Amino acid sequence: MRYLPGQAQQLPGNRSALASYQASHFRFEVEGAVATLTLNRPERKNPLTFDSYAELRDLFRALAYADDVKAVVITGAGENFCSGGDVHDIIGPLTQLDMPGLLAFTRMTGDLVKAMRACPQPVISAVDGICAGAGAILALSSDLRLGTARSKTAFLFTRVGLAGCDMGACALLPRVIGQGRAAELLYTGRSMSGIEAERWGFFNSVSEPETLLADAQALAASLATGPTFAHGMTKKMLQQEWNMGVDEAIEAEAQAQAICMATNDFHRAYHAFVAKQRPVFEGD
Amino acid sequence: MRYLPGQAQQLPGNRSALASYQASHFRFEVEGAVATLTLNRPERKNPLTFDSYAELRDLFRALAYADDVKAVVITGAGENFCSGGDVHDIIGPLTQLDMPGLLAFTRMTGDLVKAMRACPQPVISAVDGICAGAGAILALSSDLRLGTARSKTAFLFTRVGLAGCDMGACALLPRVIGQGRAAELLYTGRSMSGIEAERWGFFNSVSEPETLLADAQALAASLATGPTFAHGMTKKMLQQEWNMGVDEAIEAEAQAQAICMATNDFHRAYHAFVAKQRPVFEGD
Amino acid sequence: MRYLPGQAQQLPGNRSALASYQASHFRFEVEGAVATLTLNRPERKNPLTFDSYAELRDLFRALAYADDVKAVVITGAGENFCSGGDVHDIIGPLTQLDMPGLLAFTRMTGDLVKAMRACPQPVISAVDGICAGAGAILALSSDLRLGTARSKTAFLFTRVGLAGCDMGACALLPRVIGQGRAAELLYTGRSMSGIEAERWGFFNSVSEPETLLADAQALAASLATGPTFAHGMTKKMLQQEWNMGVDEAIEAEAQAQAICMATNDFHRAYHAFVAKQRPVFEGD
Repeated sequence: MRYLPGQAQQLPGNRSALASYQASHFRFEVEGAVATLTLNRPERKNPLTFDSYAELRDLFRALAYADDVKAVVITGAGENFCSGGDVHDIIGPLTQLDMPGLLAFTRMTGDLVKAMRACPQPVISAVDGICAGAGAILALSSDLRLGTARSKTAFLFTRVGLAGCDMGACALLPRVIGQGRAAELLYTGRSMSGIEAERWGFFNSVSEPETLLADAQALAASLATGPTFAHGMTKKMLQQEWNMGVDEAIEAEAQAQAICMATNDFHRAYHAFVAKQRPVFEGD
Repeated sequence: MRYLPGQAQQLPGNRSALASYQASHFRFEVEGAVATLTLNRPERKNPLTFDSYAELRDLFRALAYADDVKAVVITGAGENFCSGGDVHDIIGPLTQLDMPGLLAFTRMTGDLVKAMRACPQPVISAVDGICAGAGAILALSSDLRLGTARSKTAFLFTRVGLAGCDMGACALLPRVIGQGRAAELLYTGRSMSGIEAERWGFFNSVSEPETLLADAQALAASLATGPTFAHGMTKKMLQQEWNMGVDEAIEAEAQAQAICMATNDFHRAYHAFVAKQRPVFEGD
Repeated sequence: MRYLPGQAQQLPGNRSALASYQASHFRFEVEGAVATLTLNRPERKNPLTFDSYAELRDLFRALAYADDVKAVVITGAGENFCSGGDVHDIIGPLTQLDMPGLLAFTRMTGDLVKAMRACPQPVISAVDGICAGAGAILALSSDLRLGTARSKTAFLFTRVGLAGCDMGACALLPRVIGQGRAAELLYTGRSMSGIEAERWGFFNSVSEPETLLADAQALAASLATGPTFAHGMTKKMLQQEWNMGVDEAIEAEAQAQAICMATNDFHRAYHAFVAKQRPVFEGD
């Protein structure tokens, strides 16, 4: 890992803590067990650069071992989510690369999505304003998405002469909004409005711009007080069963849920129920 | 099979009849070729127990060979569908089990879903009131779902400290309502309203509570008078093609439909059409 | 290929031109880079015959090598899309065939869908009126679908005693409208209204009947002026990633997009952006 080894605090059992992590290319703040990651170049609508891609990838990889962060919110500063790969910082240099260089880049961006899907924390994107290109992929790669009516989400790779198959979009987007709607967005690059996004299942809900971030953080905090080991298993199995047959998925879940039934949180829930109390989960 | 060998009437050709089956842990009534299965502990909102799980599994396994039942309706007594695994009868004992014992339980519940997907009869759930936990899985594992506006469907495993990956939910639910909406329900355990369920494609339609069961039975009766051999093939292929490539699925359907073109029902339909009559299908 | 070898004009590099192709069993007109294919037996609502199936299959296979057609619109003459396989011309003869003959037929119809999915051109169906049986499959196998409110789309195989698994329907339809809604249409054969089709994601949008074809052709023309090499890659990857795991899909996209980054269209887009101009794509 490029950014994190010196900063992530090592804990026993291959665990580490990230609460004190000082991000270089975005803001990263941890409150309780919820990390809020803010893309923070608002004057350019928060574009991604080679450096911010790499730091995001390394951070999500580190989250797989972090014991103190139980849910992650991704947002953008200044009423926009993310405008995608910067034209000057990324697209220009890409036009100079040879094929191994191009593949190294597309694999790095793909590795960010892989890391977002592999970390056990639910990732919630809070999407206002522009959510474009790789920014739309960040939202798509999240577990949950809260948006605003005025937001505009565009998989606009086609506008720069590229294909819609970027960072997993042709696999992920059809499963979220359906094959026909995904095909339209990927072929045309047109914006999906916030209203469409909610209607099609891309956004889980629509908030007022003023409350969007607080709503996302409240949802994250709620998940962080739940059975977080089990949440990590839910996330793992949603990924794992992606292309399994139904019967194989059922066996995989029999094993995964048996593991969860051996956790303390399951026992805590039962004893709380019997005592007519609200369970207090600890994630183990 | 635990409950059925003594009861299922054996017929030639490895077929059997279930119309006279006397269920022990729920009601099971056959009218015409439609079986109605009623979960029947209304004072507890029809929870499942170890015994009812096992009998349901055995019954759906027996349905694979039953010649006299062509469609199945699942419903609950007393204005609720099913409250899931009983806290006292199931969750308490589970907290005492070792890992092989836990896995034996999760595999038994999974085997119920496998049996529901494997029997050739279309299964229609009629969902009113509470539809929670394993009850929500029963509905999800059905082929079709009719609901009411006031119904509440909750995959609330997380509320008892468990993961959303129970009995195939992480595989099945995303394909029914989309990956993002499924993730929300599985992470949060929140109720999906009847209106949401219809809007998201979980319910095929919404009925008034008074007509719900009759609507489901009428749909089942309509399917039961159709080409039931072909319906069984439709169900088999929806399962079989779950994780095939498109081209492989097309070849699989070429074979499956060629089989159906060799049935009498196909010929009956053609001759009825030529004679300007309504075809009478016999399921062979 | 049965119809085309004599007509497709061969070009260097294994490319060919189809603009002058004279279709035998439907109308085929190319304007600009957009081909419009019109099923044209309006007095019978444009049914398919053995011959039109075969010519469609051969034409879509030829489109894989055609350099002059960049998008395809499929429509029907006389306010209907397509009534499916003709009862007299197809269903009657099928009842006379032996099993190898039946399989030869179902494989031929499946080969049409394979060819539609394999050609690089986005295919847009413009659906008004009746869209039934194999006609509904033609629409389903397209990349995008524009419809009218009054249109009726029915996967009515069950009405002729057959299964819903025809030409890939059990694989394709659930990914477009969801598993539950697909199951209902395939089991019951009932019509999906134009309003439902838009709400469920089958239609990308609904047009007035008078403007439907022009709307579809305008969309096709817009795609044809885009980066058509990249569009072909988008289409290929939507197909290719159908049953891949997420991580494998991300790697597949890393490779596919790196190829697109080596195209002239990507460079054209960048230089146009820097020059504050609109890029002119050439599809290479």
